[in-house]
Amino acid sequence: MSKSILSMSMSLDGFIAGPADSAEHGLGLEGERLHDWLGEWNGSSAGFDPPEPSGTVFRELMATGAVVVGRRTFDYAGHWNGDHHGVPIFVPTRGTPPAPESKWVNYVTDGVESAMRQAKDSAGDADVLVHGADLAQSCLRAGLIDELEISLVPVLLGEGRRLFEHLGAEHIELEPTRVVDAGDVTHLHYRVIPTE
Amino acid sequence: MSKSILSMSMSLDGFIAGPADSAEHGLGLEGERLHDWLGEWNGSSAGFDPPEPSGTVFRELMATGAVVVGRRTFDYAGHWNGDHHGVPIFVPTRGTPPAPESKWVNYVTDGVESAMRQAKDSAGDADVLVHGADLAQSCLRAGLIDELEISLVPVLLGEGRRLFEHLGAEHIELEPTRVVDAGDVTHLHYRVIPTE
Repeated sequence: MSKSILSMSMSLDGFIAGPADSAEHGLGLEGERLHDWLGEWNGSSAGFDPPEPSGTVFRELMATGAVVVGRRTFDYAGHWNGDHHGVPIFVPTRGTPPAPESKWVNYVTDGVESAMRQAKDSAGDADVLVHGADLAQSCLRAGLIDELEISLVPVLLGEGRRLFEHLGAEHIELEPTRVVDAGDVTHLHYRVIPTE
Repeated sequence: MSKSILSMSMSLDGFIAGPADSAEHGLGLEGERLHDWLGEWNGSSAGFDPPEPSGTVFRELMATGAVVVGRRTFDYAGHWNGDHHGVPIFVPTRGTPPAPESKWVNYVTDGVESAMRQAKDSAGDADVLVHGADLAQSCLRAGLIDELEISLVPVLLGEGRRLFEHLGAEHIELEPTRVVDAGDVTHLHYRVIPTE
């Protein structure tokens, strides 16, 4: 069955963007540091070729069958020019959504549960990539995340946007399922242990 | 030369204690989760015997020659009954310090730099263990931490006391020097890259 995998690059102090992130600077001030491990970008959303062992982790993420992304992250990422590795993109959105910029983009106005359900339906046997800090928090609170792939970057940013914020006092237990020591980044894969 | 090593158990979302930590509940509400990997406590400060490979990491920390600890952490830990693995303890303190409770305890009233210098002098060729969140932040800002040993615990606490807070906007670059996947915890060792 399709699993939802939250994938984010995070500094050791928990930030996924530097301060003052915006549509002009999606990763905030000097936040590009978090993507150094990906190497050079060739202009497409799947257009990275990080060296091994990071390459294996990256290709797994690019083998997912759908993307669910938060509206801010989607906007700050320039809508990936309407294409994220050639799979459907679901964007939970409040209010009236804009016109989709490509056949891949689906604005979802009836909540994150609906977006996740549509994404899993679209993905078939493949997994669903989840992206964005606010969305991650909503989905974690709602029990909608099955696994985490955290690329832990060896830097303390000090300020910026945190991945894990406003989760509330309920503990969420994780099971580490893979640790990849890539030298310049540590890829940590976890399974979320359901509370029921 | 003696190195200072910040050692803390931290949840994936960055907390080293649950909410409402106090002298009665040093790790806060349900924060004991962070020390599960240590196993049963035998009553002494070095009195843990975690299974391998965590045992090796723990014994390294217990081979340090001095401890520098923040005042709150020291108070919340019940002053370790005056003994932390039989080495001198240096406690940066504002105002008039209490009477030391053992020959090991040294309250330092002239700042963290002084405390660290005294600790390194005491430790000789051995390293210095640094403990406490506020102290960690002061020491990191002042460039007084040489290495980090973060025992990353697979749980999202959601609330509590963060290890990395108030560091300011200056990036601190780290070099990963060891990753130990112990199954129930991931031990991450970093060298702090000096800014000069």
